[in-house]
Amino acid sequence: MFEKPFALSIKVVVLDANGRCLLLKRSMSSKANAGKWDLPGGKINIGERFDEALLREVAEETGLTIALQGVAGIAESESPSNRIAYLILEGRPKSGELLLSREHDDCAWVDLRELPAMDLCEQFRSFAREYSRMHT
Amino acid sequence: MFEKPFALSIKVVVLDANGRCLLLKRSMSSKANAGKWDLPGGKINIGERFDEALLREVAEETGLTIALQGVAGIAESESPSNRIAYLILEGRPKSGELLLSREHDDCAWVDLRELPAMDLCEQFRSFAREYSRMHT
Repeated sequence: MFEKPFALSIKVVVLDANGRCLLLKRSMSSKANAGKWDLPGGKINIGERFDEALLREVAEETGLTIALQGVAGIAESESPSNRIAYLILEGRPKSGELLLSREHDDCAWVDLRELPAMDLCEQFRSFAREYSRMHT
Repeated sequence: MFEKPFALSIKVVVLDANGRCLLLKRSMSSKANAGKWDLPGGKINIGERFDEALLREVAEETGLTIALQGVAGIAESESPSNRIAYLILEGRPKSGELLLSREHDDCAWVDLRELPAMDLCEQFRSFAREYSRMHT
């Protein structure tokens, strides 16, 4: 039986001082989930520490430097060629000002009660419901 | 503020055909959690794919070749020098016979109803309660 390889993606719930979560709206030209709300983060480059990879991705995508607080949840998705396992951490902004890259068209600080109602990437909907339930 | 670096460890719930989960008993000479029941898996070496790292760790620790099925949960722990984030996957044995390394003194296939009552490593107790609740 052919088994699709698993790739690992690290995402983060960045919470501001009011407990709102940062979401990024994927560009309409994204190959997958165009126009959907996403969490910051992404794949680890081979040879990179996972925490440094996440901080790098967040800085590239948002302009923010964050501090990692702990683990928040899991998710998974599947494409024709592989499967992706997501480890979702929790973090807080330390410095920097929000400045989006060309990957995203918009951003929003979302109250956790509103999180499940957002038009999120499919693979994070289950996590969003659970995380919202646990933290509101 | 000093922030401890996060290391990543990948663990796996290996389920047999009866839905029992494989636990490994850490050697009494282990530096941490000596004598406690643990899940197979471990840290990713820098430069290693995470799924290959997990399959390698499981083969080294148990003699088994497994197939990865999906994500199962999270955990975290802290030592004086760092924090560890755990991503826990789910897998099934494909081939091989159980053969422990010197890291472990015993192994057991445990019914998921019994999982929370096992003397597990502290950091997996919360996961074990939740996983048992979800799957029994």
